[in-house]
Amino acid sequence: MNKRNGWHLLLVCLLLLANAAHGAELLLRGESAGMRYRVEQVAAGLGVPWGLVLLDDGSLLLTERQGRVQRLDPESGWLTPIAGVPKVRVRGQGGLLDVAVPPGYRAGDWLYFTYVKALAESDNRGVTTLARARLEGDRLRDWQVLLVTDSATGTDRHFGSRIQFDGQGRLFFGVGDRGERPNGQDRSNHAGSLLRLDIDGQVPADNPFVGQSGIRPEIWSYGHRNPQGLAWDAQHGRLWEIEHGPRGGDELNLIRRGGNYGWPVLSYGKEYWGPIAVGEGTEREGMEAPTKVYIPSIAPGSLLLYTGAAFPGWQGNLFAGALALTHLNRIVLDGETAVAEERLLGELNERIRALAQDPQGWLYLSTDSGRILRIRPQ
Amino acid sequence: MNKRNGWHLLLVCLLLLANAAHGAELLLRGESAGMRYRVEQVAAGLGVPWGLVLLDDGSLLLTERQGRVQRLDPESGWLTPIAGVPKVRVRGQGGLLDVAVPPGYRAGDWLYFTYVKALAESDNRGVTTLARARLEGDRLRDWQVLLVTDSATGTDRHFGSRIQFDGQGRLFFGVGDRGERPNGQDRSNHAGSLLRLDIDGQVPADNPFVGQSGIRPEIWSYGHRNPQGLAWDAQHGRLWEIEHGPRGGDELNLIRRGGNYGWPVLSYGKEYWGPIAVGEGTEREGMEAPTKVYIPSIAPGSLLLYTGAAFPGWQGNLFAGALALTHLNRIVLDGETAVAEERLLGELNERIRALAQDPQGWLYLSTDSGRILRIRPQ
Repeated sequence: MNKRNGWHLLLVCLLLLANAAHGAELLLRGESAGMRYRVEQVAAGLGVPWGLVLLDDGSLLLTERQGRVQRLDPESGWLTPIAGVPKVRVRGQGGLLDVAVPPGYRAGDWLYFTYVKALAESDNRGVTTLARARLEGDRLRDWQVLLVTDSATGTDRHFGSRIQFDGQGRLFFGVGDRGERPNGQDRSNHAGSLLRLDIDGQVPADNPFVGQSGIRPEIWSYGHRNPQGLAWDAQHGRLWEIEHGPRGGDELNLIRRGGNYGWPVLSYGKEYWGPIAVGEGTEREGMEAPTKVYIPSIAPGSLLLYTGAAFPGWQGNLFAGALALTHLNRIVLDGETAVAEERLLGELNERIRALAQDPQGWLYLSTDSGRILRIRPQ
Repeated sequence: MNKRNGWHLLLVCLLLLANAAHGAELLLRGESAGMRYRVEQVAAGLGVPWGLVLLDDGSLLLTERQGRVQRLDPESGWLTPIAGVPKVRVRGQGGLLDVAVPPGYRAGDWLYFTYVKALAESDNRGVTTLARARLEGDRLRDWQVLLVTDSATGTDRHFGSRIQFDGQGRLFFGVGDRGERPNGQDRSNHAGSLLRLDIDGQVPADNPFVGQSGIRPEIWSYGHRNPQGLAWDAQHGRLWEIEHGPRGGDELNLIRRGGNYGWPVLSYGKEYWGPIAVGEGTEREGMEAPTKVYIPSIAPGSLLLYTGAAFPGWQGNLFAGALALTHLNRIVLDGETAVAEERLLGELNERIRALAQDPQGWLYLSTDSGRILRIRPQ
């Protein structure tokens, strides 16, 4: 090899290395709110990545529904399996579900998980369960179950499970109706409700139904069918929720303390999301109306309030991953009203599930086909 | 021919006659809000039917942009040309535009029209004009120009023109910005505004800017780009408007007396329809936020508030014909909020322009391809 060829070979090697180090394959470019973005693939080959969270070192922690946790370096695309995950009941819509961290997370703090747990040795029915653990190296330690919800049914549907923190020592998470409609209005169990706990698992004294006989004190709101996204707006102290609705009427709801979101009472015989006419009847009294309804259903998989600097035109917007209608749903809010909606990434034809925002405002998302993608400027 | 064949022939003839008398060809069936509907073609071969109104005898009166008025019997499909239409300036988006009647219209009452008129013999610039006439037999009589708007520009765009009555002796109609953005905020002319007049063309004394120097007293609201639909909600005394927005942001607006809807001030540099954050700046002070924004643009051609008995599940819903995105847009309201949207008739691939509701609640619509369709139960 002469000297010139040697330099060429070195150059090619460096380019290959640079490309490998970057790791992210460009999938498409687009424009939204007057801003140009690119969508890149960061990882692939995963098994339904259900939860996705940014850690303080810039890596992502993700759950796979089949019961695995992995750490992902978004620059190299390297995946590191995390040990210490307990036994998870994987069946139907259930398995290892969300992972979340409170605002200001630092290495060694608690990580929070939801998953489906068999109720007992003798009772294999699955229930949505909240737990926490610490990450030490590549292992989860100190796994603590905070709440085994009272939500057992004979089905493997509607486990809810997204976790959201209010930044003031509380967390919210949802439990679906577990495939049994009466659970929506039944507050004697946890199914069909959003729950609110202290981050150490205790019931806050100011929960709306504390001390009321026959009502679970963890309940913050009820009448939910299958909550699949929660987003906390710290600036306004608002909790947004998105859920799979009946008959195609997925709902975006602004969650009020103690609110009844109507499932399934308002769905008998007619559609749930009809206009509320004054004097139409008493059956709606005391029930909250959705902020937005999707017809047909998009099947939301998540909800995120965008607050990043990378895309200033998206600040204050909500994003939902759409499973059935395979896109990223962008919702423009005006106060408590959803004034506009944009459907992004439809070209990918991917069921989009989890969403996460990194400190600079890049968006990460997971697809049911096992990919982790990210959206960054230009 | 034997006797049996004779009977057969007679039967075939009767069936053909029955079909001809019915006249309406079934195009498709669908379901919305739990109700089954069918879409039929009532007429075809027209030239951009821009306006469509039901008369008291069950016939439809329609305008074609090229300057014709025709009466349509929806049962037979028969079209009757109406004489007495004055000279219309047909160019670009202009021509003969809307036709409307006040609630309770009876034969011999005034019919109202908007159209584009050349400003003068010596000045061929077109301006949106409001007129009225009476229908006698197959002829329009007593044509009266009520307002030649001050809206001349060098373009043939954004004439606005839908007419709506409040049932209390007033009418509203819109004028677009005429392709010149500064008209949106300039109240010294009529362009970029909704106007309010008595049904005899006088300016009501309670119009918001009456007596204010440099402002046209006909103006009810301003800052509009191109209003293409108006709907009056008599039950709540609300006026809804839909307009073609900038950069794809079509808007549904609830019109407030004297309101400034922002065009084009809020569109510089960033999108018009962004969320309104408290304290974001002073440039939005005193400007109305849209109720709903379409991203991407659907290009609305009309707006109708459904009040019919035929489709109880649609009562109180707004409907907009969509031109660019070729469908019928259904908007579910909850008070002053648009909570849901459904896109109907997309299969037809038709630019849907005018809408009209008959007394039993069947919906009529026109397409730019020159068809009149109707939607009826099952």
